[in-house]
Amino acid sequence: MQKFNFLNDYHDGGHPRILSALQAHPAQSSATYGEDIYTKKAIDSIRNEIKNPIADVHFVTGGTIANIIALTSMLKPYESIIAPESSHIHVHEAGAIEAIGHKINTTSTKDGKLTPAKIKSVLDFHQDEHMVRPRVVFISQSTELGTLYSYNELKDLSDFCKNNNLWLYVDGARLGSALTSHHNDITLQEFASLVDAFYIGGTKNGAIAAEAIVLCQSKLQKHFRYIIKQKGALLAKGRFLGIQFQKLFEDQLFYDLGREANKKSVRLSTGIKEAGYDFFVPPMTNQIFPIFPNPLLEILKKEFDFYIWQKITETHTSIRLVTSWNTPDTAIEKFLTTIHSFQRFSDQQ
Amino acid sequence: MQKFNFLNDYHDGGHPRILSALQAHPAQSSATYGEDIYTKKAIDSIRNEIKNPIADVHFVTGGTIANIIALTSMLKPYESIIAPESSHIHVHEAGAIEAIGHKINTTSTKDGKLTPAKIKSVLDFHQDEHMVRPRVVFISQSTELGTLYSYNELKDLSDFCKNNNLWLYVDGARLGSALTSHHNDITLQEFASLVDAFYIGGTKNGAIAAEAIVLCQSKLQKHFRYIIKQKGALLAKGRFLGIQFQKLFEDQLFYDLGREANKKSVRLSTGIKEAGYDFFVPPMTNQIFPIFPNPLLEILKKEFDFYIWQKITETHTSIRLVTSWNTPDTAIEKFLTTIHSFQRFSDQQ
Amino acid sequence: MQKFNFLNDYHDGGHPRILSALQAHPAQSSATYGEDIYTKKAIDSIRNEIKNPIADVHFVTGGTIANIIALTSMLKPYESIIAPESSHIHVHEAGAIEAIGHKINTTSTKDGKLTPAKIKSVLDFHQDEHMVRPRVVFISQSTELGTLYSYNELKDLSDFCKNNNLWLYVDGARLGSALTSHHNDITLQEFASLVDAFYIGGTKNGAIAAEAIVLCQSKLQKHFRYIIKQKGALLAKGRFLGIQFQKLFEDQLFYDLGREANKKSVRLSTGIKEAGYDFFVPPMTNQIFPIFPNPLLEILKKEFDFYIWQKITETHTSIRLVTSWNTPDTAIEKFLTTIHSFQRFSDQQ
Amino acid sequence: MQKFNFLNDYHDGGHPRILSALQAHPAQSSATYGEDIYTKKAIDSIRNEIKNPIADVHFVTGGTIANIIALTSMLKPYESIIAPESSHIHVHEAGAIEAIGHKINTTSTKDGKLTPAKIKSVLDFHQDEHMVRPRVVFISQSTELGTLYSYNELKDLSDFCKNNNLWLYVDGARLGSALTSHHNDITLQEFASLVDAFYIGGTKNGAIAAEAIVLCQSKLQKHFRYIIKQKGALLAKGRFLGIQFQKLFEDQLFYDLGREANKKSVRLSTGIKEAGYDFFVPPMTNQIFPIFPNPLLEILKKEFDFYIWQKITETHTSIRLVTSWNTPDTAIEKFLTTIHSFQRFSDQQ
Repeated sequence: MQKFNFLNDYHDGGHPRILSALQAHPAQSSATYGEDIYTKKAIDSIRNEIKNPIADVHFVTGGTIANIIALTSMLKPYESIIAPESSHIHVHEAGAIEAIGHKINTTSTKDGKLTPAKIKSVLDFHQDEHMVRPRVVFISQSTELGTLYSYNELKDLSDFCKNNNLWLYVDGARLGSALTSHHNDITLQEFASLVDAFYIGGTKNGAIAAEAIVLCQSKLQKHFRYIIKQKGALLAKGRFLGIQFQKLFEDQLFYDLGREANKKSVRLSTGIKEAGYDFFVPPMTNQIFPIFPNPLLEILKKEFDFYIWQKITETHTSIRLVTSWNTPDTAIEKFLTTIHSFQRFSDQQ
Repeated sequence: MQKFNFLNDYHDGGHPRILSALQAHPAQSSATYGEDIYTKKAIDSIRNEIKNPIADVHFVTGGTIANIIALTSMLKPYESIIAPESSHIHVHEAGAIEAIGHKINTTSTKDGKLTPAKIKSVLDFHQDEHMVRPRVVFISQSTELGTLYSYNELKDLSDFCKNNNLWLYVDGARLGSALTSHHNDITLQEFASLVDAFYIGGTKNGAIAAEAIVLCQSKLQKHFRYIIKQKGALLAKGRFLGIQFQKLFEDQLFYDLGREANKKSVRLSTGIKEAGYDFFVPPMTNQIFPIFPNPLLEILKKEFDFYIWQKITETHTSIRLVTSWNTPDTAIEKFLTTIHSFQRFSDQQ
Repeated sequence: MQKFNFLNDYHDGGHPRILSALQAHPAQSSATYGEDIYTKKAIDSIRNEIKNPIADVHFVTGGTIANIIALTSMLKPYESIIAPESSHIHVHEAGAIEAIGHKINTTSTKDGKLTPAKIKSVLDFHQDEHMVRPRVVFISQSTELGTLYSYNELKDLSDFCKNNNLWLYVDGARLGSALTSHHNDITLQEFASLVDAFYIGGTKNGAIAAEAIVLCQSKLQKHFRYIIKQKGALLAKGRFLGIQFQKLFEDQLFYDLGREANKKSVRLSTGIKEAGYDFFVPPMTNQIFPIFPNPLLEILKKEFDFYIWQKITETHTSIRLVTSWNTPDTAIEKFLTTIHSFQRFSDQQ
Repeated sequence: MQKFNFLNDYHDGGHPRILSALQAHPAQSSATYGEDIYTKKAIDSIRNEIKNPIADVHFVTGGTIANIIALTSMLKPYESIIAPESSHIHVHEAGAIEAIGHKINTTSTKDGKLTPAKIKSVLDFHQDEHMVRPRVVFISQSTELGTLYSYNELKDLSDFCKNNNLWLYVDGARLGSALTSHHNDITLQEFASLVDAFYIGGTKNGAIAAEAIVLCQSKLQKHFRYIIKQKGALLAKGRFLGIQFQKLFEDQLFYDLGREANKKSVRLSTGIKEAGYDFFVPPMTNQIFPIFPNPLLEILKKEFDFYIWQKITETHTSIRLVTSWNTPDTAIEKFLTTIHSFQRFSDQQ
């Protein structure tokens, strides 16, 4: 019997509307390497969303390759990236960024978020040519802990970066859930106006394998396709990527799916709170981190797949639960029932 | 009006059977990062085809990334690759191989094929630590010029490599057309027994974006997934790749599509020969290189897309024509009609 | 007026005996690229010191290039290095290690020293191909904080590394001071038997520019010169390096100079203690880290060059003082006089 | 018995005046990492020689590391270098340039020299992002074949590069011999005004291990020391390099030594011509390439060290003879006597 899946938001095969679109005109000839009409439409949709007609948009198949390519384009060999210790590039990309030659200067955080003060302390430490030269600030929206930067927080980071000759780059693997959270106070257009480059995650929000790298600054755009090609990411049948994003930004599908994922995580977190449990960080998007007593964990493991996040005390542990547009309601109900049963059982003891 | 397309074999969107398969179970949860059942089946099919149960198979989205990953796994920092001057890694991968740190030692060829003698002369030249150390022999089947290695030629290369501590690696972007050519005298199983690693091209033979890296030698297999991940090629929804290859090797689709592409190029080359034109190299697979008088080229350009290959004389030029399973018969007929008309017109003058 | 220099141990031009040796036979022809007789003698001296006749020894001009080359030879592209957060490769080599493609997994320490427990927690965290694969443990003897590993500590690290398939590599930039400290309980021979590779620092101990990379394990030795050459470190007139190390290990000069540096730091630290000041870490070798009240710092800055190490409290700061064989006695006396005067002055207030 | 050495121009230990200078003030403290007064004086000398007060000058220990650093500073990841097939970076640096990520686009030459036409054909071939983007033209003065670019040839290259957005970089390992050849018609000042960056070879012209990288264009100068440090080439005791170049450009020593090396090669080549032998390329500097009958080669090998260059016919072979300021007159006389004896012996037969 397969367990209910709260492991991640990419264990499905893609949204039906996207899958259908791929099937529409298989035999039809089109321009290759991303110069097809589907890709052009997808680019136009994104430019239109962010109201930046000079933004460049390039599509690739995943987050790690998006980060590899974007950061390659932004850095000279001796330049480095400032990122939270919990960031995906630091922990979960198998050294991809170091493999292209760059150091990541990390700073510890409680909630996965950088602040101007944290960045400044890294800058202050790096004074001469015996050290790397920080040049990019790397953040995620939502973060690896499911938290969000508010408009004001992002504005402060943006101003700080401008004043300190730093590029501000955002890993938006879960930007769909971020933008549609009821904790969010920033539009995609505002977001894009505050950062220098970012990618919009498709794969975790309905696509099969597609991320859109958005280069807001013209300075970052020159010869970008050379890097895509050199890193092996320029798909011959580029329409595969274009079609996915064309569909995501048609009729608001991208937002609908993000909203749906959030709705499910809200139900889950509300139920968990009602059952009297606390969270490692406040739940804001489609990743939530409840803290459970260890015996409850053992029970949950039998029926649900999820990651153990962190030991909190000798008796309690935080886990990560991830929802998507595709999470079945039954999974949530079953989960909540399980923790309530445990609660009652514990109360009786 | 769109021109008839002889530019390449990847301007379509994928074979209908593959596109349908992707749509089959979209919402169903499956293991991620290529550990799903579709991928496992595809791996089994390929192991079965090559009768090598210990071969490792990994799927990626394109040829350049396949070469990047496979060659990364085979080389120490000071080791190099021996390849034909015309090879894809040398000319058409935007310096991808150098970007991962390795020199390509090239040797000129007429037909895109390496020989033991050519390899030996490179080895003889590289004697000490002031030079790189050749370690991989890189060939393509079919080659960039559409030619084929015969069984004996490949056997000789294989023996030479074994005796000289060289890995033999094959770029099989067009292996489908190669194996089904009537000039071919080698089975996939024989092929796989003679080489150390290769990739089977899906994208140019019915897939949307899928290549299968096959590691025949166990020495090359260890920790290979770390490299896939580090290069940004480990797809979260790995089933996308697995499903494509599962379909390609189900009911012989892979061979059928290769055969179909060849059938079309044979019709084309036969017609061209009949019209009295010669070829830069003898046509063997789905890429052919006829030599035409320059005035005919000008006429052809108006209705057909193709690459100019090489100036042959002041008055004649070689072009590249590529067919696929999807090339319309009308395109071929129209092409042959055009050159015949020119012929008649010229004769009359 | 030039200040007294406690900044570092490399502001002089080299020991007179070494400088004279370079002048001995200038015009005489010798083998190039390190195959000369001086280099061979230096290699023999070191093999003899460590009683390991199969050790390989290679000479380069500095610590950063020694680390670059040694670590290149030890690591596959996806493998990483475990090192203290304070390590030179992490902080002070301008991203040299990342520039050759490898991540450094750091762990915080109070005294610059790794322990099996700290290493184990890094290993435990790195479980699959989404992360790098730790393969080398990098330590320094003495450490960046002037501390020492005892025989038992090094033995424990060595055993742990062997049991966990990790190479143990030591940056010995200040191995001379380490081995001759009266806190040291380990010989060079014992040291070399416990680690897989290390370099012996010459530049900070009498040489002009020379470090000896020692490869104790035969597995690490193959084709090492290719890496030296590729990184631009194979000197045409390799005898320049060989002569320096030949002199260092002739008549115990290497040890004498280390001892001399320590004698000076002991006088300095004893005087500082007597004046009632404490240290950030206990002084053990030629780098010491006293904690002074900030007003005293201002006075010291006028006459002495040194690095500010770390703010300890609002009113006190730790500084780094470095001595060498060449530190004038007057510098030490002047320093001690200055802090005593300040003491008296403070006492009177 | 040691043979007479025509193998290379770096088998000695350095010129006595340079060696003495190193010994002058060993114990004296000076600024580290190349910020010392000796280095500043050497920089001023070179700026003065080339009459370019804004040129940046950096010293390193060898030619390969000079090329690594200079080319790192000039290239984006997808950019390449156009160089002669015979160039040192392509053949004799163990893949150092590929190891920093860049492809070398080679072009065949008879005399080791590039021309605008040759460069243009490489540019014409590289049209889009499937290929690398040529950005640096790499030449040597003198070339690997001992030949020279005339003022007009260099001016043409310079103009072509300016008009085509290419940096012109010169490997000047043997610039001393080049500038003092009686075939040379260009001053160092003119030379420096025509190229964007170059290095002046010290090691092959009297130094122990020292090359001066000269950055003529301010655009190339920013943060250059970060790259020197990152590649492991920033010597702690940088004065070692500064002193060598200070001496080389004091009292014209650099030119005197180059002239001396040429004088010796002229005697050698004149004698060889008089004996009736021809050359692979006309002798112009301190590397000459006579063609000898194979039996004579066997005789020469017994008493002289030199490289076999290339088989010319079944019966004749070209060899490389290199002279330096330090080549003994007896070696030349003995060489000429040997070939004359062979001549007489042959005549008698």
